[in-house]
Amino acid sequence: MRFTSEQRLDDNVLEREFTLGEIPGILWTPGTASAPAPLILLGHPGGLSKMYPRLAARAQHSAAQGYATATIELPGSGDRPRDAAAEQARADLRRALEAGDPVDDEIVCRLILPLVDKAVPEWQATLDALLTLPEIGGPVGYAGGVIGIGLRLAVVEPRISAALLFAGSFVPRAMLEEARQVTIPLLVLLQWDDEGNDRQLALDLFDAFGSKEKTLQANMGGHTGVPLFAGEDGNRFFARHLK
Amino acid sequence: MRFTSEQRLDDNVLEREFTLGEIPGILWTPGTASAPAPLILLGHPGGLSKMYPRLAARAQHSAAQGYATATIELPGSGDRPRDAAAEQARADLRRALEAGDPVDDEIVCRLILPLVDKAVPEWQATLDALLTLPEIGGPVGYAGGVIGIGLRLAVVEPRISAALLFAGSFVPRAMLEEARQVTIPLLVLLQWDDEGNDRQLALDLFDAFGSKEKTLQANMGGHTGVPLFAGEDGNRFFARHLK
Repeated sequence: MRFTSEQRLDDNVLEREFTLGEIPGILWTPGTASAPAPLILLGHPGGLSKMYPRLAARAQHSAAQGYATATIELPGSGDRPRDAAAEQARADLRRALEAGDPVDDEIVCRLILPLVDKAVPEWQATLDALLTLPEIGGPVGYAGGVIGIGLRLAVVEPRISAALLFAGSFVPRAMLEEARQVTIPLLVLLQWDDEGNDRQLALDLFDAFGSKEKTLQANMGGHTGVPLFAGEDGNRFFARHLK
Repeated sequence: MRFTSEQRLDDNVLEREFTLGEIPGILWTPGTASAPAPLILLGHPGGLSKMYPRLAARAQHSAAQGYATATIELPGSGDRPRDAAAEQARADLRRALEAGDPVDDEIVCRLILPLVDKAVPEWQATLDALLTLPEIGGPVGYAGGVIGIGLRLAVVEPRISAALLFAGSFVPRAMLEEARQVTIPLLVLLQWDDEGNDRQLALDLFDAFGSKEKTLQANMGGHTGVPLFAGEDGNRFFARHLK
């Protein structure tokens, strides 16, 4: 892990860009932390520079609660090399959405499964590197989108203690089985009236999760209209499970 | 409204039993309120003395946040006169539940619709009386079970500004249409693994509510296992809408 830039945000949060091999990422740490900070990995749908404003806002919010946060670019997004099969799947998905057709599970599988397979080991390598830093301690949470990535991480990565999953992205139905293996506490956010989202699949997924403690919170306001209080509920969720 | 007893609870909450005509009820007011307190009506499935511990706990919790709370006995419950048709419907429901049969909507209609028709005007008369007390001010919220009563109150009673509905009771499918007329902010709590509850109907009901701001929160833990943090989320919901 190599830090490539460093700046202090207004509220004294330290923001550092890094690369881990070819993967670019960003780490935010609370400016005033005396003890190693618990860490929240911030998931997103890909395209770090486009996602930056929302991620940085989330990071500052989390830093105010004492958390370090980190994110990395997804395979095939931002400046990272494109993958022909993934590009084809993305184009097929876009075509189905533009035509107003229901999105075929086969397209979702082609798009999401290889992405999950590639991204999850990258998140794990990032976690390895982050946990060597003296300013970062456990426990670790995952928050954000590409629910398939959060789901797989929750299954394979024992260092992740709790996850806030945003049920606003496509999930291959094949991952329903995998969801049964998730046992960590979950907060699942669902935008009820998000037209681009398969609500029934999100409900099936919530039902499938094997976690004894799981909460589904559904709100109105469309894909990007998650209400402020849901973010605060997310803070309280992590406060219950990461401290 | 006639007060029949008065006691101070440990945390200085004033608890007063009252009768309104033949209807018994309880009013809890914060001991330290300087201005008229906003009011939360506490719904329950009937049987005040059995429900008292949970209602009083909720009332004390609310008083700590500055709210007055009040509840009344339901028609046909507690010491109130029984209604033969309601008793028959209740027996039919019990039989279906004991046999493990799906509960017929016809039984639910016979049980719930007359109850809603009788209980809602009683709640409104109680509200009339409570709002004449100098220690009670608006705005008013409704919190609790018998979702049909909360739903009808939300439609017909303009003094109710927000409702926390517990989707753990039977609802006639006929009330789905009525749900579309609800426009106040709602927090709907659903115990996901509550076997006595029709989960799909609760989801249909949440979908039907006409409110622009509505949140569904589903948790694990069975019918009576609503987690503590859901109660706190309820406080924050009312803090957003009743203050």
